[in-house]
Amino acid sequence: MRKHFLLCFCSSFILLVCLYAQPTLYPTNWFTGLKDNNLQLMVRGEGVANKVPMIKMPAAGMQLAEGMTLKSIQRTDNPNYIFLNIVISAAAKPGVRKIQLGPKDKGLQFNYELVQKNKQNGKTRTQGVSAADFVYLLMPDRFANGDPGNDIIPGYRSNTSDRTNKYDRHGGDFKGIEKNFGYLKQLGITTIWMTPILENNVTMMHEWGNNVAGYHGYWFTDHYEIDKRFGGNEGYKAFCDNAHQNGFKVIQDAVYNHISKEHWIYLDPPAKDWINNWPVFQGPNHREEVLFDPYASAYDKKVMLDGWFVDHLPDLNQRNPELAKYLIQHAIWSTETYGIDSWRVDTYKYCDEAFMNEVNKALYREFPNITILGEAWVNSVIGNAYFTQNNMGNIFKHNANGIIDFQTCFAMLSGMNRAEGWMDGVNKLYTTLAQDIVYKNPMNNLLFLDNHDMDRVYSVVGEDWGKFKMGINWLLTLRGIPQIYYGTEILMKNFKNPNDAMVREDFPGGWADDKVNKFTAAGRTPKEDSAYTYMSKLANFRKTAPAITQGKLMQYIPSNGLYVYYRYTDRQSVVVLSHTGKEAAKPNWGNMQERIAGFSKLKDVVTGKVISLQDLTLQPGDSYVMELLP
Amino acid sequence: MRKHFLLCFCSSFILLVCLYAQPTLYPTNWFTGLKDNNLQLMVRGEGVANKVPMIKMPAAGMQLAEGMTLKSIQRTDNPNYIFLNIVISAAAKPGVRKIQLGPKDKGLQFNYELVQKNKQNGKTRTQGVSAADFVYLLMPDRFANGDPGNDIIPGYRSNTSDRTNKYDRHGGDFKGIEKNFGYLKQLGITTIWMTPILENNVTMMHEWGNNVAGYHGYWFTDHYEIDKRFGGNEGYKAFCDNAHQNGFKVIQDAVYNHISKEHWIYLDPPAKDWINNWPVFQGPNHREEVLFDPYASAYDKKVMLDGWFVDHLPDLNQRNPELAKYLIQHAIWSTETYGIDSWRVDTYKYCDEAFMNEVNKALYREFPNITILGEAWVNSVIGNAYFTQNNMGNIFKHNANGIIDFQTCFAMLSGMNRAEGWMDGVNKLYTTLAQDIVYKNPMNNLLFLDNHDMDRVYSVVGEDWGKFKMGINWLLTLRGIPQIYYGTEILMKNFKNPNDAMVREDFPGGWADDKVNKFTAAGRTPKEDSAYTYMSKLANFRKTAPAITQGKLMQYIPSNGLYVYYRYTDRQSVVVLSHTGKEAAKPNWGNMQERIAGFSKLKDVVTGKVISLQDLTLQPGDSYVMELLP
Repeated sequence: MRKHFLLCFCSSFILLVCLYAQPTLYPTNWFTGLKDNNLQLMVRGEGVANKVPMIKMPAAGMQLAEGMTLKSIQRTDNPNYIFLNIVISAAAKPGVRKIQLGPKDKGLQFNYELVQKNKQNGKTRTQGVSAADFVYLLMPDRFANGDPGNDIIPGYRSNTSDRTNKYDRHGGDFKGIEKNFGYLKQLGITTIWMTPILENNVTMMHEWGNNVAGYHGYWFTDHYEIDKRFGGNEGYKAFCDNAHQNGFKVIQDAVYNHISKEHWIYLDPPAKDWINNWPVFQGPNHREEVLFDPYASAYDKKVMLDGWFVDHLPDLNQRNPELAKYLIQHAIWSTETYGIDSWRVDTYKYCDEAFMNEVNKALYREFPNITILGEAWVNSVIGNAYFTQNNMGNIFKHNANGIIDFQTCFAMLSGMNRAEGWMDGVNKLYTTLAQDIVYKNPMNNLLFLDNHDMDRVYSVVGEDWGKFKMGINWLLTLRGIPQIYYGTEILMKNFKNPNDAMVREDFPGGWADDKVNKFTAAGRTPKEDSAYTYMSKLANFRKTAPAITQGKLMQYIPSNGLYVYYRYTDRQSVVVLSHTGKEAAKPNWGNMQERIAGFSKLKDVVTGKVISLQDLTLQPGDSYVMELLP
Repeated sequence: MRKHFLLCFCSSFILLVCLYAQPTLYPTNWFTGLKDNNLQLMVRGEGVANKVPMIKMPAAGMQLAEGMTLKSIQRTDNPNYIFLNIVISAAAKPGVRKIQLGPKDKGLQFNYELVQKNKQNGKTRTQGVSAADFVYLLMPDRFANGDPGNDIIPGYRSNTSDRTNKYDRHGGDFKGIEKNFGYLKQLGITTIWMTPILENNVTMMHEWGNNVAGYHGYWFTDHYEIDKRFGGNEGYKAFCDNAHQNGFKVIQDAVYNHISKEHWIYLDPPAKDWINNWPVFQGPNHREEVLFDPYASAYDKKVMLDGWFVDHLPDLNQRNPELAKYLIQHAIWSTETYGIDSWRVDTYKYCDEAFMNEVNKALYREFPNITILGEAWVNSVIGNAYFTQNNMGNIFKHNANGIIDFQTCFAMLSGMNRAEGWMDGVNKLYTTLAQDIVYKNPMNNLLFLDNHDMDRVYSVVGEDWGKFKMGINWLLTLRGIPQIYYGTEILMKNFKNPNDAMVREDFPGGWADDKVNKFTAAGRTPKEDSAYTYMSKLANFRKTAPAITQGKLMQYIPSNGLYVYYRYTDRQSVVVLSHTGKEAAKPNWGNMQERIAGFSKLKDVVTGKVISLQDLTLQPGDSYVMELLP
């Protein structure tokens, strides 16, 4: 009895607090000056729908506040949510509005701010990324700890930061990255892509006999909060501004496919169908083919799109219009609030296709320069091209203007590691690139040798410097946007054995108590420093080389393992030679008159050494990036 | 002195004979009633160009004969040729014309016939082939010898017929095939494709320590002569008529890419540039990629298109307009003269692309139902689709309406022979078909398990009946036009070891002195007869099954090695189940509601056995073609 009474008392108290508290609003603020003047404001709070009277809306809508016309109100089965469909007038002024719906005492009241859309020189500040960039992918928890004060945040569901546990958070943050901008700049990096930075306020999981945290960021619990252990919303804003001031662009990592089981959307869904529900757990089949296969079954398609990526990540049903709007507005809000330049979209191939085009279209509309890079880990060039703008007809037409290029990655790994076969080794690279016809713009393909989901490339090539160098040469001179994974430049290694935590180790020197600091030349071994220096020289040459960043590509059929291609404009020609064969070889310049006419010498862009065309002999394993000279 | 005198005398004699002989004319005759009323008549004869005066042609041309207006005369550097550009009037009557150009005594005189274009019921008799057909590929020299009288033809450059030599001619001919029409009909065959039947009047070559003849037919010496050892022009005409009367269609094998070194075109070329000449022998690089690769070099492209397939097969330069016209008119002439239904085009990927479209366009114009099947042995779906009508943009657009489907062949072989991997075994078949989006009409893809250039499929599967049957099931039920290679139905075997003659053995029973006759059930072993019977039952069921010949395809993602797909129309549903896994398995009917709703039973289309859906269990290696019943 007594217990029951206490419970009632507590509930009443909570209700009381809710009634008088400002409800939660999504988006948390909105903007003046957007091209799309519609806003769907989600109001969230205990019983909030009951506070809003059933209004018969005039056709023209009703004035909600200065510059804000309420067009309609949407309710769901869950009384804790209400959706206000609002039009922002072109003349609306930035500023906070007091909004009141229903009677003053028990109606809905809240403050809402419209912020002026930020512009610089008449353009939006979002720059997009291009083949002129060089992207550095890092995991903010694992790169550098700039502020030990935010390692543990009281009130979060897990409260440890333990570098002895490969699966726990390690304390890395935005400040740590900012401290090392100089290191990245010297390396020739122009763009930073962090694994997701949204709040992952999750309870510690137990896997592989360990406590496992959401250190990688893919388990969202709140879209409008940046994880406070990285620096929170203010820290991210400062990071983006600082990055831009230092000449870096920022790619944010989006996850539209799923959320954590501890996201409020899953704990108290606005409507049951915000989640793709299954009677028992159903994973996806991971077969992108079902999306384009003219012979696919509805069943396989449903499993692919609606299956949960893993048991603890509820799959979002982006066909629900309010959820779709929520995600789209969040993408616009983030782009505008933080001024980011590009989105990398996680698990692209598992998302509702029409929705993906909708969110991309909305982003292109507000931020015409933005680049959207879909991550679809696929197994064919056709599959790869399918998820970006392509030249293939009679299929769903995706509109992402870039794609993470897994096919070229696999081909480069084959070329570095395997002997030449008709379709193998360096010929896999040659034949993969030859299929570029299906892409609208292969220069927007993100090139990479590894990432946080893959074995580290230096291990993949058996720690062979020649093979590694060959891969770096390709990465930085082939068509597309090159990306490296943090630590590759200092030869960080490991296989995903037993799992991916092994390829996500801390960058040595990012923590005050680290014994070595590989951010400095002094902290690196000679081998590591050679790698860093080589990449730095090549990347910095690349910055000044329109032949590579804008030029054409011409490749010759590999012969006896020797693969030769050119990047060129009218004014500059660069030749990249890679020898995977078993005998020393000279390039067959006679067959390449089309590209070498007028040139007689070669300048190694890294060493500066100049030799005549005729004098070049490649030993097995040799690879060079050379500028052609008259 | 004396010797020199004799030589002069002989030359004069030859000249004399030539002066008064009818010159050779190409095309040997032409037609009234064609849509294209232009004819380029090539006149060939010693010094023939010198007999034709330099006429100043009136703009309207000059009357050459009834219904034939000469528009212009073309000369080349070679006086043995002259080209008359003629317009045939719509009112021209069939019949022989006497044609005279220049003075009666020393001018050019010849007879030329126009034949009425053959029509049946207002349609051309050319039917085309489709997915409703079942194609039998055979080598006429190796199938059956119906007329031993034509085994050796006096006057030909080689005069042996020796069955003890795998590389010599063996005497097979049209009559031999005709004798076995019943056998083919019983097998369910609807279409016969013979390796080329044009004259190969070549001197015996010496390779692999043997005398080697052009028994396969790919070494043309005269386009307008059918090899007399097969039956000559009259024999081929009779064969085609007989085939059509027996309900068979005929596919002719074309070679536009090259000719023999003993073709008159090479021995006395009308112009030097009829041949792609190289200072020393240059083979092609075999890389179809260079034709679509956006980054290909002009050099690699030239080597691919102009290189000689092998040392003794001069490469034709189809960019020469007179040669192009010669080849195009020959294609029309053959189609019309013999009434063939379809062309299989050899070495498609080595031919000038614009020319291929021209010849195809000309054929489509005169024979709207014709099917053109390009043979391009390629290494990617994109490469495969490139050489036929496809959905890929920004590339040269080929117009062949069908393609030999090497990719699906490789995928079926993988499915039959290899364990399931993510992209391997049966998943290679699944994922290859999923990429059909790039074809305009994959139902026009020619499906096959082997051909005269490949290891025989029964050997490839290690003579395993289960694997073999699985392949036959796919061949006869997947989308496209199925084709088998002669002898597959009686389990003929062998690898191309040491070379392709091993997979081109005589069909046992085709020769009077053969000890066994596998054209009859009595001559076949029980195993061979099971194979023949199985294929025959399935192919004959197929003939009556619109679900397969016209219906849709739906495939489910293979699971634990079990691959299930459906062919269906509104009225008929067929399910094909193939189990490549290691454990007995039941189909997951629950996941396939979309296709099985309304059905409860399965009828094995070969055995007629009926069982309920729920009772079906597949053991490893099992495969079935089943019709769904209510």
